[in-house]
Amino acid sequence: MPGSGKSVVSRIISSILNAEVVSMGDVVREEAIRRGIPQDTVSMIKFAEELRRNYGKDVIAKMTLRHIKRRGLTGIVIIDGIRSLNEVKVFSDYGKVVIVAVHASPKTRYERLRSRGRKDDPRSWDEFKIRDDKELRFGIGNVIALADVMIVNEGKSLEDLRSEVEFKIKEAFSHVDNQDRSGS
Amino acid sequence: MPGSGKSVVSRIISSILNAEVVSMGDVVREEAIRRGIPQDTVSMIKFAEELRRNYGKDVIAKMTLRHIKRRGLTGIVIIDGIRSLNEVKVFSDYGKVVIVAVHASPKTRYERLRSRGRKDDPRSWDEFKIRDDKELRFGIGNVIALADVMIVNEGKSLEDLRSEVEFKIKEAFSHVDNQDRSGS
Repeated sequence: MPGSGKSVVSRIISSILNAEVVSMGDVVREEAIRRGIPQDTVSMIKFAEELRRNYGKDVIAKMTLRHIKRRGLTGIVIIDGIRSLNEVKVFSDYGKVVIVAVHASPKTRYERLRSRGRKDDPRSWDEFKIRDDKELRFGIGNVIALADVMIVNEGKSLEDLRSEVEFKIKEAFSHVDNQDRSGS
Repeated sequence: MPGSGKSVVSRIISSILNAEVVSMGDVVREEAIRRGIPQDTVSMIKFAEELRRNYGKDVIAKMTLRHIKRRGLTGIVIIDGIRSLNEVKVFSDYGKVVIVAVHASPKTRYERLRSRGRKDDPRSWDEFKIRDDKELRFGIGNVIALADVMIVNEGKSLEDLRSEVEFKIKEAFSHVDNQDRSGS
């Protein structure tokens, strides 16, 4: 969910597993550049919605998988930005998936986004709720409910967050060999 | 989700806050007894589905709220078994709600249900996935995504679980006065 800190957690996992992060948002952004679409977040969200409406709920996952193959990435790959179980299926049809969810309470996420204050971040609780609803409509709640690893990022220091992630990821990957792939 | 350990966590919260647990499942069971419906879990799940189909997604929440009022419960009440944001709304229209989610990975939940081995617990991974899908269709993923407190119940001892719950609940309730209500 927005403001949970999933990008920070992706980077931490990347450094722990020495694996690359592929951001589904970046894959959408690349496609937008190719089509000459402006790259502010509002246009990006609209473009991603359009893609999903026109080509199916899993189209961005499919684009991301093509991107991974094109770059010749093998071993563990961290995928940042999964939104639905339809997207999970695209990756799990290709390789082993470990779902890592990052949770923070709505209150914490709202305060975090407010203090980040990017141009597109919500300016009010109502705006925040509308953005949350949009994420939930994709089906992200189902992915969170079925997560293999749950990271709670509630007012922790970066150091404590890192320790928690390290402990849980090492535990989860003790069962998975290095040919497998991971989604976050 | 089934096997996450939400009933154990409800009981722990109950002892910490000295507040009563009202189980939405028990409210359904009571209604089933009134109507002479058998009380095995399969019949109970069917009956609950029928109630929701015939009287709306929030009917069991409304029945639970009536039950709470009838019993004259005031102050904090722990509600065990919320399945959707429609149900959350029934309670939040009545009082302040703190959503507590209990998470465990599918692998852990499956092993827990298998070792519990109640007559109605899943006998195979496929049966387990079907039951999970049913829960997700209610919209429980959205409730988990918007939880105010996330308890991770992944192979912890009861003592460690209790400490985590105690810490997080006390933190969450330091912002909430005693006239408010809580859902789990």
